[in-house]
Amino acid sequence: MELTVYLAGQIHDDWRLKVEKKAKQKDLSLTFVGPQTNHERSDNIGEDILGEQPGKFYKDDAASAINNLRTQVLMQKSDIVIALFGESYKQWNTAMDASTAIAMNKPTIIVRPESLIHPLKELSNKANITVETIDQALEVIGYIYE
Amino acid sequence: MELTVYLAGQIHDDWRLKVEKKAKQKDLSLTFVGPQTNHERSDNIGEDILGEQPGKFYKDDAASAINNLRTQVLMQKSDIVIALFGESYKQWNTAMDASTAIAMNKPTIIVRPESLIHPLKELSNKANITVETIDQALEVIGYIYE
Amino acid sequence: MELTVYLAGQIHDDWRLKVEKKAKQKDLSLTFVGPQTNHERSDNIGEDILGEQPGKFYKDDAASAINNLRTQVLMQKSDIVIALFGESYKQWNTAMDASTAIAMNKPTIIVRPESLIHPLKELSNKANITVETIDQALEVIGYIYE
Amino acid sequence: MELTVYLAGQIHDDWRLKVEKKAKQKDLSLTFVGPQTNHERSDNIGEDILGEQPGKFYKDDAASAINNLRTQVLMQKSDIVIALFGESYKQWNTAMDASTAIAMNKPTIIVRPESLIHPLKELSNKANITVETIDQALEVIGYIYE
Amino acid sequence: MELTVYLAGQIHDDWRLKVEKKAKQKDLSLTFVGPQTNHERSDNIGEDILGEQPGKFYKDDAASAINNLRTQVLMQKSDIVIALFGESYKQWNTAMDASTAIAMNKPTIIVRPESLIHPLKELSNKANITVETIDQALEVIGYIYE
Amino acid sequence: MELTVYLAGQIHDDWRLKVEKKAKQKDLSLTFVGPQTNHERSDNIGEDILGEQPGKFYKDDAASAINNLRTQVLMQKSDIVIALFGESYKQWNTAMDASTAIAMNKPTIIVRPESLIHPLKELSNKANITVETIDQALEVIGYIYE
Amino acid sequence: MELTVYLAGQIHDDWRLKVEKKAKQKDLSLTFVGPQTNHERSDNIGEDILGEQPGKFYKDDAASAINNLRTQVLMQKSDIVIALFGESYKQWNTAMDASTAIAMNKPTIIVRPESLIHPLKELSNKANITVETIDQALEVIGYIYE
Amino acid sequence: MELTVYLAGQIHDDWRLKVEKKAKQKDLSLTFVGPQTNHERSDNIGEDILGEQPGKFYKDDAASAINNLRTQVLMQKSDIVIALFGESYKQWNTAMDASTAIAMNKPTIIVRPESLIHPLKELSNKANITVETIDQALEVIGYIYE
Repeated sequence: MELTVYLAGQIHDDWRLKVEKKAKQKDLSLTFVGPQTNHERSDNIGEDILGEQPGKFYKDDAASAINNLRTQVLMQKSDIVIALFGESYKQWNTAMDASTAIAMNKPTIIVRPESLIHPLKELSNKANITVETIDQALEVIGYIYE
Repeated sequence: MELTVYLAGQIHDDWRLKVEKKAKQKDLSLTFVGPQTNHERSDNIGEDILGEQPGKFYKDDAASAINNLRTQVLMQKSDIVIALFGESYKQWNTAMDASTAIAMNKPTIIVRPESLIHPLKELSNKANITVETIDQALEVIGYIYE
Repeated sequence: MELTVYLAGQIHDDWRLKVEKKAKQKDLSLTFVGPQTNHERSDNIGEDILGEQPGKFYKDDAASAINNLRTQVLMQKSDIVIALFGESYKQWNTAMDASTAIAMNKPTIIVRPESLIHPLKELSNKANITVETIDQALEVIGYIYE
Repeated sequence: MELTVYLAGQIHDDWRLKVEKKAKQKDLSLTFVGPQTNHERSDNIGEDILGEQPGKFYKDDAASAINNLRTQVLMQKSDIVIALFGESYKQWNTAMDASTAIAMNKPTIIVRPESLIHPLKELSNKANITVETIDQALEVIGYIYE
Repeated sequence: MELTVYLAGQIHDDWRLKVEKKAKQKDLSLTFVGPQTNHERSDNIGEDILGEQPGKFYKDDAASAINNLRTQVLMQKSDIVIALFGESYKQWNTAMDASTAIAMNKPTIIVRPESLIHPLKELSNKANITVETIDQALEVIGYIYE
Repeated sequence: MELTVYLAGQIHDDWRLKVEKKAKQKDLSLTFVGPQTNHERSDNIGEDILGEQPGKFYKDDAASAINNLRTQVLMQKSDIVIALFGESYKQWNTAMDASTAIAMNKPTIIVRPESLIHPLKELSNKANITVETIDQALEVIGYIYE
Repeated sequence: MELTVYLAGQIHDDWRLKVEKKAKQKDLSLTFVGPQTNHERSDNIGEDILGEQPGKFYKDDAASAINNLRTQVLMQKSDIVIALFGESYKQWNTAMDASTAIAMNKPTIIVRPESLIHPLKELSNKANITVETIDQALEVIGYIYE
Repeated sequence: MELTVYLAGQIHDDWRLKVEKKAKQKDLSLTFVGPQTNHERSDNIGEDILGEQPGKFYKDDAASAINNLRTQVLMQKSDIVIALFGESYKQWNTAMDASTAIAMNKPTIIVRPESLIHPLKELSNKANITVETIDQALEVIGYIYE
């Protein structure tokens, strides 16, 4: 059974590549999708397509409209969502994507360090399961194939 | 027309009281609901009801289960959601509540300071409208009654 | 049985007042809701609340965000939608409101002059019923109470 | 990832062919669907199948029933909707299709000239993103594949 | 607890009055709604409102558009549907109303004589319960209040 | 584009074979599904699987439970529903299937002889389109591929 | 704020009366609904209304059809579901009601003794919160009003 | 037509293998999915992935979170659900899975011995069909292919 997994979360390091590599090692039939991981491109996509905007708010709003369309298309195609929270950044997009996935009845795995237990407790409680590492998230998905 | 408004967001100051007072001044027929605003009670509600838990994670999970039930009951009763983000704290609950409201087709107003434009841009773009002050949020709601 | 009726359509004349007056004459237990009918206020509401915007597009987008929130709140409260098209103007809002109502399974009545049969034919076919006058629309609603 | 795109909008020129050609040039895995683009056939399809109708209204209603069935089948199969508005015609079908797509949670891109900013402002605000050219719409879709 | 009951079925005798009378005798807090029971009015409502139509098919289609709107409004307001089938007539409306109610998750009671067991068997199996008399239908509803 | 079509309606003649043959002649990429067309098997399937039942009502109820499961599986897989009514029989199953399809937002075509215009008028008005012959129904579907 | 609470679970003792009494003592604005608690009436309701059935299976099926209708009506009216499991009996109805409530997005509280932790673990994990006593369940609901 | 069947129920014997073997013998195009059938693995999966938990309740809750995610993924992929109840064990998971499937409009077959007629009567009445043996369940599915 082929499953598609949306990888929500920060785009500041290459954690998605690690997930894909580990999934390959485990020989899981997974297709991974996710947000634009080129941070600059993600921030500029509004102006890249629509041209210069009259200020930071408008530049950001244009970019996020296109980022949201991308996420909506890809999440609707997904069977499972992994949402990873790191130590830094606001990461409200990650909380938004995880919450939207849960509201859409997409089975959802949260990955977060122990240090974030308290601020993420309500979201964690709504997700199917919360783990601390990518490996654990893939073990959860691997379990579906056992 | 009576409308019920869920006030999502931080519980570290008395912004909800201000909202209610201003709504009264404008003579709007609004009922306000929201999360437990006694922070200590909110953090301890799991242990208050279930008894001592075997560690911080379990205490937090028990509390958030009950907080989530409360939010689910009250948000389902609401016609509009105001989600306020302040300068401090992670506020992932607020992002979760706003995203859930949007996914439930609840008309949603985000209130956030200018400094948070960038980290909140995707959520802001999905909400109906984003403003910077409580007064503006109430003007938006007041407009429904004009 | 109390019913709430959303009156979608142009805001360039006082057709809504006529509807309300006729409904009163027929003694129907109806509450009418609808868009902001002060055209200037409707166009300026974005800047009225958010302050000056950097150009016509941004002014219009800010206003429409707030107008859309108003429509969403009131249409969700409605049991029936009447959408009136006149001879003039683009009236894409009216087509949008009628289509949204139909997609939400709100019983929908279109009012349009004979001259608009052809351009409105697909929307007309999707609505419950299409009539040519306000009186006919109210006769349809009156029939529910017979 | 294969995506299906519904191309809503006027059928008075060959803009759909341009879209398909440009998508091919960009090597995007897209299948395009849309309304009947033979205008005469679209207007006559009711009488073509059901036989002569007793007047213009009935001819139009029969045609639109079949056009609506076609649109419903194809839009339900689509992952994304592009709705193009030109300078001329009423184009209420386009507004209807875009609004229906949005209500069905189909990611929606509006293409319209600058001259239509004002009359389309509410619909534009509800769509995921509004652009001015076909090229921009395809850049938005291309971005999903980056 | 106040409940609203939609009474679907033939309009050729006064069975609805009997239901209402018996409900009153049992002192059940029920509001009954249903289709237009004046048969002539029901058949003519299209022409009564829209004017003469060009033939029987068009007269019937106009009438049914308005009858369907009435049913949609009232069934959406209902908590329970009773659908009564008698010995005579095609009664496809009754089958349509019962099937629609079931698809809308409205608790549905079918009343039909023993002679109709076979032709109604699939619909009967989908409804919550099938009984043979009005009295039994009201006993079922009365049981909710015990 | 491959489409699946559910053929609801009487099982007393071989109209489904005609539909399939004509679709082949027109070279349409259609898969047809439908109810059990062996009438005896359809009536006996309950007892065939569950063993003898204590009377006609119970035999019929057992059969219809299994027929309904079959219909539910196949209709959920379908993109379009054709519902054919003939001159004879009660055909409440056909009305049930068509109404259920409409409530599930399945594009629905009704085929019925002129003689049934009046008793089918409300259902006809809710379906996408009503035609009088199998050929017309296939022309409607063929139009999707033009 | 008035809330309606469905009390699912065994009908072998008077736990519902205790819940109602405690709620009154706490002065909570709650309306309680639930299944028929007269066990004999619940088991016989099918034959009471439909007459003697041809065996135990048919008697039980007739009774459960009417019990299920009652539950569907009352659960759709409810804002919260409490599902209580005791030490004895199969209590599959309770599991069914809790699971249905969760699938309907009704906030759900499970009450079960410590001895049932293991067999109820998956259902417990899907509910909002699991407690061990009626008092705890009411504390959870009381918390909504704080 | 390929169909996917979720096999809910006890994991204490190899009934799923028998189902798969019989389906092969009947040459039905079915893919079977279901819960983890290695009982020990199913009970320990929480600790296997998350590490040791502080007691039986927490170990069970962690395991069930992962078991529930697996079920949610696989049931959403399924076209039909078979839920088998045996003579022993509480089997609340089976009742939960069957109830969830019914609430999700998944066609559902219950298999249970005659001895469980009474305690399963309400669930049985909500399912599409209840049979006593695996063979009968496969005959029901085989009937879809006739």
